[in-house]
Amino acid sequence: MRFVRFLSEGKARYGLVEGDEAIELRGDILGWHQRTRARRKLSEIRFLPPCCPSKIMAIGLNYADHAAEGSRPVPKQPILFLKSPGALIGHGDSIVLTDQVSRIDHEAELAVIIKDCIKNVTPEEALEHVLGYTCCNDVSHRPFQRAEGGQWCRGKSLDTFCPLGPYIVTDVDPRDLKIECRVNGQIRQSSRTSKLVFDVPYLISFLSQGMTLFPGDVLTTGTTAGVSPLKTGDVVEVIIEGIGTLRNPVE
Amino acid sequence: MRFVRFLSEGKARYGLVEGDEAIELRGDILGWHQRTRARRKLSEIRFLPPCCPSKIMAIGLNYADHAAEGSRPVPKQPILFLKSPGALIGHGDSIVLTDQVSRIDHEAELAVIIKDCIKNVTPEEALEHVLGYTCCNDVSHRPFQRAEGGQWCRGKSLDTFCPLGPYIVTDVDPRDLKIECRVNGQIRQSSRTSKLVFDVPYLISFLSQGMTLFPGDVLTTGTTAGVSPLKTGDVVEVIIEGIGTLRNPVE
Repeated sequence: MRFVRFLSEGKARYGLVEGDEAIELRGDILGWHQRTRARRKLSEIRFLPPCCPSKIMAIGLNYADHAAEGSRPVPKQPILFLKSPGALIGHGDSIVLTDQVSRIDHEAELAVIIKDCIKNVTPEEALEHVLGYTCCNDVSHRPFQRAEGGQWCRGKSLDTFCPLGPYIVTDVDPRDLKIECRVNGQIRQSSRTSKLVFDVPYLISFLSQGMTLFPGDVLTTGTTAGVSPLKTGDVVEVIIEGIGTLRNPVE
Repeated sequence: MRFVRFLSEGKARYGLVEGDEAIELRGDILGWHQRTRARRKLSEIRFLPPCCPSKIMAIGLNYADHAAEGSRPVPKQPILFLKSPGALIGHGDSIVLTDQVSRIDHEAELAVIIKDCIKNVTPEEALEHVLGYTCCNDVSHRPFQRAEGGQWCRGKSLDTFCPLGPYIVTDVDPRDLKIECRVNGQIRQSSRTSKLVFDVPYLISFLSQGMTLFPGDVLTTGTTAGVSPLKTGDVVEVIIEGIGTLRNPVE
């Protein structure tokens, strides 16, 4: 299944994608929900981020080639940082640069949407608690990220710095998906999720040790080499095999 | 005014504190609310964290003596990290240690509750957008905090690692309040908020540059020297002049 969330007469609605349409749902994709008779053309909807997480867990340096391009060692354990949920935007929304001088990069990532309330799960059981997968652009303000103190949160949490979507796809195997980032149609990042240093089951298990993951929480799994600066007027796409294309203009 | 949030017949309710009672409110302290006739003894309620933030913004090394005890320089700009809202517990709830070996410290902090949706505010206007102040214990798992990659989020976001409360006090001046941490009645941390490297108006203004702060968001302002490890059976208190005492047992 392929879920979408969108604005309908000023309200947030979930939909189930069939062909080029979204069938409006009653309820919540994380709990009870039911189809309605209302259908909307995907080409006409205003996409919203496909879920409302209590936290966005992001993993740093989780592809060896990206660690290398930043002259960092491949980590021995996952590196967690949090992005503010206030940074979320949907497919089609604009990434708004804070200024025209600071280096602000795209980072194409596979994102995982948690289905259940889980804690201390094993890698073996982790995937049972996943609702599905989507595309994330972990937009990064490098000067803020590299400021004194070395904490990445601020540079990763500015308004519009977390495009997510367009769909949550429930029936895809995350182990070996092609992932790309294109800017103005040109490929900037290209890899496969099989190259993740820590794979999805391991990450979920690791993060859930001592920390409850809640339904709707987002885990974004890190980016591959090829990050590059965005400028006003660009159109940036995160494309993941079997999931879709998350496209955002840059203002 | 002094607001409290508590469990009443299985539901979260807000209350207005008068003497040793809470007057139950209808509505939400961040919007429309109204007194009801129901009154509850403070000594009999189960306290909840006094708000439901979309993000918890925490500031590192914001007292010179704490920076010194960790052999770190006093920062030239605020150092932001995020704590997961899932870590929140109320006054009286237990801090649950992940294990009996890892060093897990208390950190007494003045916390600020944001009232409005704000962005790019100046220090001069910042305090107009504050609902009030409360006590926070920024409980910190040192091995996780100091793990490879240097990101503090995980060690600060474990379940129960963000005691907050007991009250939101709206009519207190944050500029020079005595702040203490006691463990089993013994003073471990003692300072005044006048010693903050970056004061509350500056922090709000700084954080709001490029990042929207939402009603109910929490800003916790950093801790003074004297952090020390907690062990099972301890009772830890954060005491702030004019606000109250946040008391939590340790399991």
